[in-house]
Amino acid sequence: MEANRSKAMFRAAIVKMAPYVPGEQPKPGQRLIKLNTNENPYPPSPHVRRAIARAAVGSRLRLYPAPRADEFVASAAQLYRIPMRMIMAGNGSDELLAMLFRATLGRGDKVAYPSPTYSLYDTLAAIQEARVIRIPFPSDFALPVEELVRTDAKLTVICNPNSPSGTFTPIKTLDALSRRLEPKLIAIDEAYVDFADDNALRLIKRRPNVIVLRTLSKSFSLAGMRLGLCFASPDVTKTLMKVKDSYNLSRLALAAGAAALDDAGWMRRNVKHIRRTRATTERALIRLGFEVLPSSANFVLARLRGHDLTDLTARLRRRGILVRHFASPALRDALRISIGTPREMTALFKALESLVPPPTRAPRNSDS
Amino acid sequence: MEANRSKAMFRAAIVKMAPYVPGEQPKPGQRLIKLNTNENPYPPSPHVRRAIARAAVGSRLRLYPAPRADEFVASAAQLYRIPMRMIMAGNGSDELLAMLFRATLGRGDKVAYPSPTYSLYDTLAAIQEARVIRIPFPSDFALPVEELVRTDAKLTVICNPNSPSGTFTPIKTLDALSRRLEPKLIAIDEAYVDFADDNALRLIKRRPNVIVLRTLSKSFSLAGMRLGLCFASPDVTKTLMKVKDSYNLSRLALAAGAAALDDAGWMRRNVKHIRRTRATTERALIRLGFEVLPSSANFVLARLRGHDLTDLTARLRRRGILVRHFASPALRDALRISIGTPREMTALFKALESLVPPPTRAPRNSDS
Repeated sequence: MEANRSKAMFRAAIVKMAPYVPGEQPKPGQRLIKLNTNENPYPPSPHVRRAIARAAVGSRLRLYPAPRADEFVASAAQLYRIPMRMIMAGNGSDELLAMLFRATLGRGDKVAYPSPTYSLYDTLAAIQEARVIRIPFPSDFALPVEELVRTDAKLTVICNPNSPSGTFTPIKTLDALSRRLEPKLIAIDEAYVDFADDNALRLIKRRPNVIVLRTLSKSFSLAGMRLGLCFASPDVTKTLMKVKDSYNLSRLALAAGAAALDDAGWMRRNVKHIRRTRATTERALIRLGFEVLPSSANFVLARLRGHDLTDLTARLRRRGILVRHFASPALRDALRISIGTPREMTALFKALESLVPPPTRAPRNSDS
Repeated sequence: MEANRSKAMFRAAIVKMAPYVPGEQPKPGQRLIKLNTNENPYPPSPHVRRAIARAAVGSRLRLYPAPRADEFVASAAQLYRIPMRMIMAGNGSDELLAMLFRATLGRGDKVAYPSPTYSLYDTLAAIQEARVIRIPFPSDFALPVEELVRTDAKLTVICNPNSPSGTFTPIKTLDALSRRLEPKLIAIDEAYVDFADDNALRLIKRRPNVIVLRTLSKSFSLAGMRLGLCFASPDVTKTLMKVKDSYNLSRLALAAGAAALDDAGWMRRNVKHIRRTRATTERALIRLGFEVLPSSANFVLARLRGHDLTDLTARLRRRGILVRHFASPALRDALRISIGTPREMTALFKALESLVPPPTRAPRNSDS
């Protein structure tokens, strides 16, 4: 488009910005081992499918859904023992993040987060023309608390467990950080928290500046459904509601979300399997010569120090295995690998065995 | 929330703004004749339910949906004979409107539309801190073209057919307006256009500043599904994509949307019934003493000049009939009534007969 025309049409910040690039989604029919976008390898609860079928019967879809997602929010209130007025539902937690950035950040306002982390935050900040302050994680991914406090940002975002590192910041640390940031908002993005040992939900009752975000995409196996939850004080929830689309979740999403939360036992069983496979994966990757940070998520970050893994990613792709490689210099030597089924992971290990450059491979036994 | 705390947390514009208030959505089990939010009284195509069941089978929902809504967009491309790169899908056309405002309007930028119209535009403009220029419609709701051109707004929005008036601006007029606004953007919100005799889709091929928005909520009977479409030049579409959530439509929404568009004949038959009922409704309301503008939508605006109809709306509500009454002074004497089934409309006419203040009623025959 001619530059002048484009400028007349759109905000300059939008014309300039790069779009967020999600991981590859195979076309229907493509048979790939998909370990690149942290989906759950196991299906959602069978109650979900039944609830969807019921919600789609006859004439029901002709009517608007409940604007406040009542049935889904009620299930969340029951499962997490949080009052409904402290819960807001989103079309995926991505939409909730977008609402949060929209409600809090004007042009030039500061938003802070440790880096590297979920790269969507950069996109959302660019849309708001906010000033991003990225505090680099140290190599062990311990949260840089002091530096975050010093930024004096209007909004601080912590992805915990963090992506792409998989590392977990203790809730005690987040509690202390939240106290020090008050009254500035801190959003704790818990997309992967069901795969960890603890979570920050209890903080929202004592810290009015804490917002906890969840998604049903990972642990509840519902990435295809777009379901997110936001937990915060009633006042914060009320203000965020103002920037929400009136009917942001379909009737089918509400039914599916409620059914999934009502059968949380199903999710917990899948999480157990995934955590077991995660442990074998960590061991196998270390044997192959990778450095692997201890993960509290459904993926691991595997490093071959100093090696650009662009090519390895492409070679895995040719063998039908998708993993995530990030363009940023700090992550050039790393792969983020989602935890699939044991069989999928075995296929990955086999492929890596023949692809990983031998010099970097640790000896497998004393006579090799 | 304490005012200072709130200011520290959120943008001032958000703290100040009033939220958009959608029409009442009855709780499950409430039996009401619902003529307040322009839903279709007939069910969606039976293909929709089957497509949803297929998309929900087994493990499919565990995977992310196509970020560009391929199957839904492909069906739209085929039905409307528009290339896929000129089409973007949204979580309802409300989401597409939000993206459009977000991509085009910065603080203080001018957005113009005739008034009264869809009140969501005010909410979206407030979120962007845009300057709204409302050009009052004359009493016959002819489009105030000259005044709109003179605003020199960055974005002009025309709801056509307009809500709440139901009136239709000829496409020739919109074409001329678009030409004069170029290169500034004009969005034509065609939520109700399937109930009219013409539409503006042909304009996007010759006018690079025209954006046409559609929804499947009204004519396709899928308000509960959240499906919208945006048609524009490839360049405009590409820029709008940058402010879209990566996965804004669920797998079920994509399947439902494609199935509905593939069976457009079903929609056209329902539209035919609704247009017939609309004609009887207009006549019946005029007999009851209302002024009714000729409608090209699935609702009518009925006026009792000079009467505040707040009370009438409440009385109808008590009889189990929901209609839409707007708080604004200009619409205090008007009801927006969605077209339901013939039986629902008969119930409305009966209720109105006993409720409409007799002095304003036109004599029904010479000896009354």
